[in-house]
Order: sequence, then structure tokens, then C-alpha cells
Amino acid sequence: MPQLVECVPNFSEGRRRDVIEAIAGEVRQTPGARVLDVQADQSHNRCVITFVGDLRSVSHAALAAARRAVERIDMRSHRGEHPRLGAVDVIPFVPISGVTMEECVAAAKDLGRQIWDALRVPVYFYAEAATRPERRRLPDIRKGEYEGLAAKMADPEWVPDVGDPKPHPTAGAMVVGARRPLIAYNVNLATDDVEVAKKIAKAARESSGGLVAVQAMGVTSERGRAQVSMNLLDYTKTPVHQAFELVRAEAARYGVEILDSEVVGVIPLNAVADAARFYLRLTAFRREQILEAILME
Amino acid sequence: MPQLVECVPNFSEGRRRDVIEAIAGEVRQTPGARVLDVQADQSHNRCVITFVGDLRSVSHAALAAARRAVERIDMRSHRGEHPRLGAVDVIPFVPISGVTMEECVAAAKDLGRQIWDALRVPVYFYAEAATRPERRRLPDIRKGEYEGLAAKMADPEWVPDVGDPKPHPTAGAMVVGARRPLIAYNVNLATDDVEVAKKIAKAARESSGGLVAVQAMGVTSERGRAQVSMNLLDYTKTPVHQAFELVRAEAARYGVEILDSEVVGVIPLNAVADAARFYLRLTAFRREQILEAILME
Repeated sequence: MPQLVECVPNFSEGRRRDVIEAIAGEVRQTPGARVLDVQADQSHNRCVITFVGDLRSVSHAALAAARRAVERIDMRSHRGEHPRLGAVDVIPFVPISGVTMEECVAAAKDLGRQIWDALRVPVYFYAEAATRPERRRLPDIRKGEYEGLAAKMADPEWVPDVGDPKPHPTAGAMVVGARRPLIAYNVNLATDDVEVAKKIAKAARESSGGLVAVQAMGVTSERGRAQVSMNLLDYTKTPVHQAFELVRAEAARYGVEILDSEVVGVIPLNAVADAARFYLRLTAFRREQILEAILME
Repeated sequence: MPQLVECVPNFSEGRRRDVIEAIAGEVRQTPGARVLDVQADQSHNRCVITFVGDLRSVSHAALAAARRAVERIDMRSHRGEHPRLGAVDVIPFVPISGVTMEECVAAAKDLGRQIWDALRVPVYFYAEAATRPERRRLPDIRKGEYEGLAAKMADPEWVPDVGDPKPHPTAGAMVVGARRPLIAYNVNLATDDVEVAKKIAKAARESSGGLVAVQAMGVTSERGRAQVSMNLLDYTKTPVHQAFELVRAEAARYGVEILDSEVVGVIPLNAVADAARFYLRLTAFRREQILEAILME
């Protein structure tokens, strides 16, 4: 199986097309790295680049993209709705195949050190690469944002994992780490009543006692329908079909049907196979029976 | 997307391990061809080799394997339960990705001519490569079997598509063609009453008015359960979930539950994705969203 790592860095630029393209261009020019998606959001004023490759290529591409972002983004004049710590907000490595989480953690730590050496931007390690429990969650690290960074770093609790404890003047700080594949999964309801979606989201999400490794919120979709918008943080714990079935069951108590559902961005083959396995009761089904999967070994 | 063709030739040897290995070895030694599975059945006295590769490599491997089979198998002493025309019974090419059915048909016809030129075994083209409607179905071509081949070939209706109208003395004749991926799919029932499985199979199969492109029979499984054993000849017409749901609905009328189901051998990624799409109501889901599929483009 070829080594395959996904990398989904977030950059604090969602408006200037030339800057976004310059950053994505660095990834495109890195041999062995392949850009799957570039999504920019104007109101968040940030962009997310999804790319894949072997660990070494992905690390090279991430460093090149970070270098370009530090060069082109000045956080002193950055405004946007989404919380962020710096020009490069976060760089997660995601093991997909032929690579362990430990290898991704090691690569994330290497990258953090290279970023400090080359760009003089201090780095926090998060998720599986976190050095202490309170640095596992991105929202905790981001708290205070770029504007509060100097004060935060002065707190011994928030000394960066790599680099001096003061922000880079224009680029702030970066968060680098490794995490499992995350599936962005939305279920659309046959109602425009967003309150129903909010109640279902509350029942679904881990933080209010729902499904393990699930984040969920109730929103109104672009089509004006109530939507339960979820992040499945670990599909080996809560697979897609469990999230779907919980939403279906909860919706039924409000007399609401499921309209449809959608995967935003990419999903691992195993997660798709799990759904088929569940609904078709394929007890002995192996990934290796999927023709295309065989050829990736 | 890399060109990917599946080839599933059937050889009239299911007992002599050295012969089976010699034939499979020819495929293994062909650059660009990859053996996925070798299944031998003693009572049928036949083996089925599943391999994949680009069209050119697959054709080379098929010719090499056929040459070895003709050399090692003498049909004059062959006995077995399964109908067959010769040492190599059938060679189907199956387009998987990056290749059209038309290209597979052309390759099958080329291979047929090479087989005649090199091995002097007459060839019938079947399925998508058939030259006349009555040669589309394998059972029709196989009728009379090796033992009746000389008489059959003397009938102007059954002149072979390539080669002289008389059997090769030890190797008989071959059937070569191209067909869509076939999914061998079994649904196990929570009963040991095979009659229930037979009734459901009758309702499921196309030939008795059931699902298009589905062959089905009711059997007793290895575990002693009633089983509806199906071939899904065209999953773009009847997908796996439709076969499963029909069996479930028909079983319910006999008060029988579905125990589980199984895919025998390989299944295309698209067929797995279709099941997830159906049950999760993924209306806008694209194959390209599956991480591993992206990398095969």
C-alpha cells in the first residue's frame, strides 16, 4: 500500500485570490504532493487547502506553503470571523494508509522545529502531537487569538512547544499536529425549522452526551432547510451510519423526515465500506475485496 | 485514472495442484498483471483465476495462461460436474476503470485470433464480444460440452468465430469475450428451509420476472442455512442494495429474517459507494470524494 497522508492546513487569507493561489501553488509545485481542494471563505477570511502525498512530500509542501503564507499575510491588519492564531493557523497531518499515527506525530514535530528554524514563528503541537492534555483541543490553543497572543505566551502555561515565547510580529504563532481523518457530514431535514436541527444536534454531539467523537450543530443550509452539521472525528468509533441513524431516530420524535445527507470534502474508503457493511449486513466483508483497494496495497 | 481490466478465466483443472500453479504462474510472471485470487473446485474439476492489469498486460497473461493450460490439460480424460467446452473454458475481460467496453471487446477479439494462430484452438466470442445474439450467453455456447463439440461445430449455426470448425483434439474450444463486472452476492436467511430460499430466488432473478441482470438460485450454505445465491451481472442496472432489499421483502412474507450477506470475490468501488449512497441518502456524493479513489485517477 502506498504511503498516504492527508494534510489540511488553514491559512488566514480568504479574500485575496492571488495570495491564496500563491500558497496553493507552493503545494502544487512540490513533487509527490497533490492538491485535492482549495476552499476560501470571505467572511471567515481564511482558506483551507486539502492535499495528499507521502509523509515526506506532504511535510515539504506544508513548509513551503507556510513560508509563502508568512511572507504574504500580515496579521496586524487581518480581520475575520473565524478564530485564528496566525498567518498559518493550523497544519494537521492525517494518516490515511501505509503510515502510522506515530509517524505523523513525529513528522508534525519535525515540521514544527523546521518552521521555527526557518521562519521564526513559534509553534504549538496539538491533537495527537500535543505535549500536554490542555493542548489537545484547537479551540483551547486558539483562545485569545492573534490579538491576545503576546499576553498568552507570557503565561508559563502557554509557552510554545518550539521557539521563543513571543509572537512573530506579522505571522503570530502556528499550531501543528496530527489527527485522525475527520469526516464533515451533514444531514438535511425535511423542515425549515432550525430549532429541530439544534435539538437533534444536541442529542448527537459528544459534549452533551451523544455520540463519541462527534461534534454537531443545528444550522440552516444553503437551500433553506434545517441541517444537522457534524464533524465525525473518529469514524472507527462513531461511523457515518450511526450518526445518520441517530439523526433519523431523533428527527422522528418531531415528526420530521430525513431529506438527504452529504459528505463535505473527502471521506476514507473504509468509512464508505463501513456503511455498506452495516446496511447490507456484510459480516465477512474485507476492504481487500474492493477491486480498487487491492491495487493500492 | 490507471487503466484497469479484470480477467477471470476458467480452466478445466481443479485437482492437480501443480497444473493449477503452472497456469497461475504464467499470469504471475507477466509484467503488469496481478493475480488477486485462485479458486479451485475439486468436484467441478475447474479453477478460476482472477487477475487485473492494463489491457495489454492482461491480454498477454491470458494468452500465456491459455498456452500452458492447453499444454497440460487433456480434455479426453477430463471429468467434472461443471459444463465446459475445453481446457480453457472461458476468458472474460471486464473493464474496471480507464478503459471502455469497446476496447475490451477489441482486445478479446485480438486474443481470440492469437489463440487460434498460436494454439490452433477454435474460439467463440461471447457476451459483449458476441458476433450473433445466440452466442451472447455462455450456457448456450457450452451446450453439448466438450464431448459434443465435434457434432456441434459441424452445424453451420455453430461455426466458430475464429479457426476451423473442428475441436482441438485435447483442448476442445475456447470462449473469449468481454462483459461488465459481475458481483457474486449471497444473502443468508435465518432459516434452514432451502425451499424459502428457492422461492425468493425465483422472485429475484430476471429469467422469472424479477430484477434485471440478476441470476439467482436457492441453496443451502456451508453453514447449513438457506441462502439466496446471486450473480449481479450489471450493478449499474440492479445494484447490490436492490438485490438485498428484494430478498428482505420477499423473506418477510415467509416470516424469515435476513441473517447476513456476503460478497464472493471482488466488487468494484462504485458498487460499494452505491450502497452507501442509497442508505445514507447521499444525493450529491461523488466517487472523487473517496480519498483512495482520488489517488487512482
